[in-house]
Parts: sequence; C-alpha cells; structure tokens
Amino acid sequence: MALHTLLHKSRYSVSVCGLFIKRGLAHRSYQETFRFVDLQESLTKYPKLIPPNDDSLKFGKVMTDHMLEVPWNNVTGWGSPTISPYHPLPLDPAAKCLHYALELFEGTKAYCGDDKKIRMFRPTDNCQRMHDSAARIALPTFDIEELRLCLHRFVEVEKNWVPDQPGFSLYIRPTMIGTEPSLGVDQSAEALLYVIASPVGPYFPTGMKPVSLLADPKYVRAWPGGSGNCKLGSNYGPTVMIQKEAVSKGYQQVLWLFGEEHYITECGTMNMFVYLKDSQGQAELVTPPLSQGTILPGVVRRSLLELAESFGNIKVSQRPITMAELVQALNDNRLIECFGAGTACVVCPVEKIFYKGEELLLPPIPKLDLSAPAHSADPLFLKFYKILNDIYYGRQASSWAEIVCDA
Amino acid sequence: MALHTLLHKSRYSVSVCGLFIKRGLAHRSYQETFRFVDLQESLTKYPKLIPPNDDSLKFGKVMTDHMLEVPWNNVTGWGSPTISPYHPLPLDPAAKCLHYALELFEGTKAYCGDDKKIRMFRPTDNCQRMHDSAARIALPTFDIEELRLCLHRFVEVEKNWVPDQPGFSLYIRPTMIGTEPSLGVDQSAEALLYVIASPVGPYFPTGMKPVSLLADPKYVRAWPGGSGNCKLGSNYGPTVMIQKEAVSKGYQQVLWLFGEEHYITECGTMNMFVYLKDSQGQAELVTPPLSQGTILPGVVRRSLLELAESFGNIKVSQRPITMAELVQALNDNRLIECFGAGTACVVCPVEKIFYKGEELLLPPIPKLDLSAPAHSADPLFLKFYKILNDIYYGRQASSWAEIVCDA
Repeated sequence: MALHTLLHKSRYSVSVCGLFIKRGLAHRSYQETFRFVDLQESLTKYPKLIPPNDDSLKFGKVMTDHMLEVPWNNVTGWGSPTISPYHPLPLDPAAKCLHYALELFEGTKAYCGDDKKIRMFRPTDNCQRMHDSAARIALPTFDIEELRLCLHRFVEVEKNWVPDQPGFSLYIRPTMIGTEPSLGVDQSAEALLYVIASPVGPYFPTGMKPVSLLADPKYVRAWPGGSGNCKLGSNYGPTVMIQKEAVSKGYQQVLWLFGEEHYITECGTMNMFVYLKDSQGQAELVTPPLSQGTILPGVVRRSLLELAESFGNIKVSQRPITMAELVQALNDNRLIECFGAGTACVVCPVEKIFYKGEELLLPPIPKLDLSAPAHSADPLFLKFYKILNDIYYGRQASSWAEIVCDA
Repeated sequence: MALHTLLHKSRYSVSVCGLFIKRGLAHRSYQETFRFVDLQESLTKYPKLIPPNDDSLKFGKVMTDHMLEVPWNNVTGWGSPTISPYHPLPLDPAAKCLHYALELFEGTKAYCGDDKKIRMFRPTDNCQRMHDSAARIALPTFDIEELRLCLHRFVEVEKNWVPDQPGFSLYIRPTMIGTEPSLGVDQSAEALLYVIASPVGPYFPTGMKPVSLLADPKYVRAWPGGSGNCKLGSNYGPTVMIQKEAVSKGYQQVLWLFGEEHYITECGTMNMFVYLKDSQGQAELVTPPLSQGTILPGVVRRSLLELAESFGNIKVSQRPITMAELVQALNDNRLIECFGAGTACVVCPVEKIFYKGEELLLPPIPKLDLSAPAHSADPLFLKFYKILNDIYYGRQASSWAEIVCDA
C-alpha cells in the first residue's frame, strides 16, 4: 500500500518504515473532501448579548458568536473544519476573490419550532447547489453529506441564536472564496469555505405586502452560456445598480426579462411563478425552466413545484413564459396570481408590473391573515406560505424539515 | 455659509460659533472625492529584497513594499489616501465583496525607459474606466485626476521596484471593494479603494509566440444589458472554468463568440483585432464595436485604433464581425492577421482557431525579431508592438507616456 494511501486511510498517526508520521504534516495526501468527524471546536468564552427579536432586527446585520471554517489548497486539499469565535479574515490584497469574483454563497435557515426543536429545511439541496456552484467557478468541490453534517453541528452550537418567536429564524450563510494571493486570471490555488449566521425577523412583519416590479428588457441578469444557474457572487453585484434604478422609479424589485420575446426569468433575487388559467380553463402554475441555465434552481422553487404536483388539481409547468402571454392572460381575465419565491420571503405576491411604459395591475390580492389556519379559499401563494411555514416550525411533519437539536 | 460648506472649504480646523472643529471628526461633511493633497505616507523601515528580474518572475505573484489605500463610507464619503507597508486586509466575513462581487479592478504598467525615466501609459484612461466601473457596480465614484496623481506618487514611492531590463515593467493594480459587513443584496455602505503593484517580466520572453484559440459559441462572456464593458470581478470569475476547458482541449485561450451569428467579441482577457482585405482589396483593421456594451474599452485597443488611423493607408473599423466573415476572408486569401491586444502582452498574434469541429489555420506568421528596429515589411501587429514599446520605454516621444520620476 502506497504511503499516501496509508495516510489517507488513517486519521491518526501511521507507522511507515518504522517512523510514525502525523497526518496533516508534510506527507499528507490530497484530501478530496473535508470530514465532519475532523471538526474541531474552540468556542468563545465571551458570548455576545443576543439582540431582542423585534422590529429592530435588520436582515444580515448581526452575526452570531461563531463561524465554521474549512481551508483548502491545491496540494493537500481540504483541511479540518473548525468552529471558532467570529473573527475578521486577514485577506491578502491580491487574494483572487477580491479581483475576479472567485466566490459563491448559499442561503438557508434554521427555525425554532412550536415544539422547541430546531429544524433546517432541505439542507442537502443547499449543499448540492454549493457543490455545483464551486464546480462552475473552479473552486474545490467536496462531499455534500460532510457539509450537511457540519451545518447541523454549527446550528447546534449557535442554537441560542435561533429566535423562538413566530416568523423569526436564523439565516445561515455558507460561503466559499478563492484566497490565493496572485493576480493571474486563473483557478485559485487556495480557498476558504466558511459559514456565518445571522438571526432574522419575519419578512412580512405587518402582514404580507404585495410588491411592484419594474420589467425593463434592457437589463439582463443571466444568459445561456453564462452562469445564472449558480449562486455565484458574480450574478448579484451587477444587479445592485438596476435594483436602485427600480426603486428610484417607484418599484420595489426588478422583473428580469430575457431576449426579444421578453421571457420572464426571475424577480429580484427570487424565482418567479405565474398562476393562470390556460385557454382550456385549466389552472396552470408556470415557472421558467432550468434548461437554459439562466434560472437559479431554488430550494423553495423546487418545493412549491412538488407541493403543487401533490395537490393533484393543478397543471404544473416548468416552461418558458413571455410577458406577452402574461399580458394576454391578464386581459382575458385568466391571470390568477404572480409571485416570487425564495428562502427570504418564502413567497411574495406581485400587485403590479411596469412594462413597456405602462403599469399592469394584476388581480387584486385580498387582505391576508398569515396567522389564520389554512383555508381552501386561500390564494395559492398563501397556501404555499402556510404549508411551508407549518413545516419550518414543526406544525406539520415532513421529511423536508430535519431536526437539528432541542432548543 | 452653512457649517458643512465651511468644513468642506477648509482642510484644516475651522471656527464655527466660536468653537474650533477639526475636520475628519463627527461634523465632517460628505467628501465626493479623495484628494492627492491629503495623501499621507508611512513607509516601511524594512524593505523587502527585490527579486531578480529574470525568468523566475511569475506574473502577479510578488508584490512591492507598499500599498495605497483610500477608505470610503456613505456618511463621510472619501477619507485621506495613505501609502503604507503592504499588509493583509482584515475583512469581516460578511463583507459584501466576499458575497456579491461588489468589486472592480484596473491594470496598468510603469516602465523604466532607456533614458532611466519611469513612465506610465495613458493612466487617465485607466482612472476613467475605474470610475465608470464603480458607477456600474454601485461603488463610489471620485475625481479621476486625483486618482491619477495618487498613482503617480505611488509609482514614485515604489520606483526601485520598476525593473530596468528590456520588456520588464511594474504592473499596477488599482482595486475597489465593498466592505460593509451586511448580507443584504444592496449597495455597500463602506468601500476601500486600494492599489498594489507587482514587477513583471516580458510577456514573450523567448520571442513572440502566436496562440491557438478555442471558439465555442456555447460559452458566452458578456451580454447586451449586462456589464461586460466594465472591468468588474464578476466578468472574470465565470471565465476561469472555460479557460481551463480550452487548455484541456489543447488551446491556449478562449475566443469569445456572441449570438447565433457567432460574432467575434474578445479573446482570453484581450480585445480582438482582425486585419483583412475587404472585397475591394482595401486593407481593413476590424475590432468589435463598444456600442453593445459587451466589449471592454481597452486602453491598448484605443491606442491601436488611433495609431492605425494615423497610418493613413488602413481602413479602421469598429464594427461587428462574425466567424463566417473571418472564415470567408481566410478561404479567399483575404485574411492578413488576427491578434489580441491588452496591457499584459500589448499584442498577441493568433495562429489557429478551433471552430465548429475543425481547426482554422490562419496565415503563417514569419519568425519575429522583437528587438530589430521597425521595418516597413513588419506585420501590422508587430508594427503596433514596436511602436508602443518605443513609447513605453521612452525611445519615441509621445503624449501617451507620462514621465513619473527619474529611476
């Protein structure tokens, strides 16, 4: 058995030619993945005061006490995961992530259930997407199950930071950056995977408010042959200026269109859903397909498609849909609802769209009581909202919600 | 005169209502730009050993002793520029640049001339493009003349790092990153402009070698309505994997195509030029136009267009050009040369292009003597190369080359 194989097989010291060699030293073989069993913890002696869970809690501003980190380099591969006190990253000014956007991220949440158990929602999906994003941006991949186990433990360590009020959650932000200090436009020889977390309040603190969208085909978020189907930093930076323009024109989000046909793609940082009656009067839920590589494969997107299929009475379509089709359905009184879907809001109904110089007023949305029990007359987006929240908070048993620990 | 105007007008302390208030403290007004006159220097007492200027010098790996930094925030605006010893940047793990690619860069060079004067090439163009990139990615803008003056001084401080061998130079990397620690996809409330530098060897140490290109329309670098005309990190990260694929297939660079017509756009990280005889037999230099917003407005690109115009006998065209037109010209024996152009290489001739399953062999390139004086029989790209190098190294007087200081 070759030395590197021997070293690979044992996580402790091995004897080679009578010499004991510690793993992690010079002769260590390349590690294709990090491993949960190698996780080391060095927890803070000075925990921060956890801020009150009220309206003052702004998204992504307050971080928890700790962070999870796993270093990588192209010689020894992945190192051991560590959980240690939240701290600045001392990056070389030439680090590739600061120049060429060799970076990616994920977003998921942990919820404190009515039963005081802490759950995560389909974390394997986030781990898989993080893996796929890494492959696309030439950062290192890993065994997604190892990341899932590390995330579970990280949430357990930070469990006091998972708010126990309704609608609150702990937002979890896995990130990977290329850290090699070198100015060539090339793969990074060093990288860091890290995970931070931030307690967040309800997206709709005063009831679900529909949003207005600016749909201007001159702005394009993603295109075939690009990387719009991965959660890369590079897909987000260039949208900030467009989002500012939407706000300056009185709209809350951008509806991203594509091509001369003005295909509907995404809305803000959410997947887009259109619920309409087709020409035969059949209720159809439409969301753009993943096949062009321009749509982020959202975890909520997938969940809504699976839920809608399970209802049995809705035609569920992942197919291209143009603004012209939406306008036609609106004019024919066949448009039922439009809504965005994502981890932050779950679902977010749309009330109007500015398109080609005019405001399209979508069907009015009834006053919504988010805390009322599900009702058969609820709009579809509200059904989705209530079902997913019931799963997040443990009121409805589901294999999608993984119990992490007791609160 | 309002307090903030008073404070704005004086760089020292001012008396307001009988109280002296120091600028830079709480009452400081918003600074729209940083200023060269505010530059502070704290130089190293322990300069590094400057590496030998030989083949061992790899691009962008060794950094000089110092860095220039200017902080910004959305309350007080720009702070004072400082030049201090090169040091790690302690970034918060939630810094927006690490998640959403709120980052941009520039690349320019300083040359030590045959007359032992140090020159920069058209730095105002780089400062203008950096300004425009900042506006596109919602980072703060500034007075470009102030940046030009700061760059001059930074190069003067690092003048011992400007190699004095032929073909060598000091590569200068202005960078800007959004540093606010906050996970919302939004404009950064804090930013850092910084400049680092790295001595680099000749791009063609053993004579100018033509490159081979992979032209596969399934990969797309930029799109109208995107941000391909700005020097943003987000335009580079997603190309790394494609470049790796080109290399794995035996090609050195990617020729980026666009659209069903297979328009030629850029090549690697260079602008692309095609030199051909049109159907009337007139020599025409073609490079794709900036009008679609998909082409980086290169400083060398602009210089070559201006030089070609000055020759008087070449038709100079910024117009769309397809692969079909290139292939037709090649088949008609009307294709003269193809080359990339950029700060790193100046010009880089192309010998073959893999396209639609076959290798297009471009007209053979004669053996090139880069050190020989310009000759009327030189290929066009070699004329450009020699003229620009003569300007860089002070052998030909030009307003494009700004003298920074004596070596």
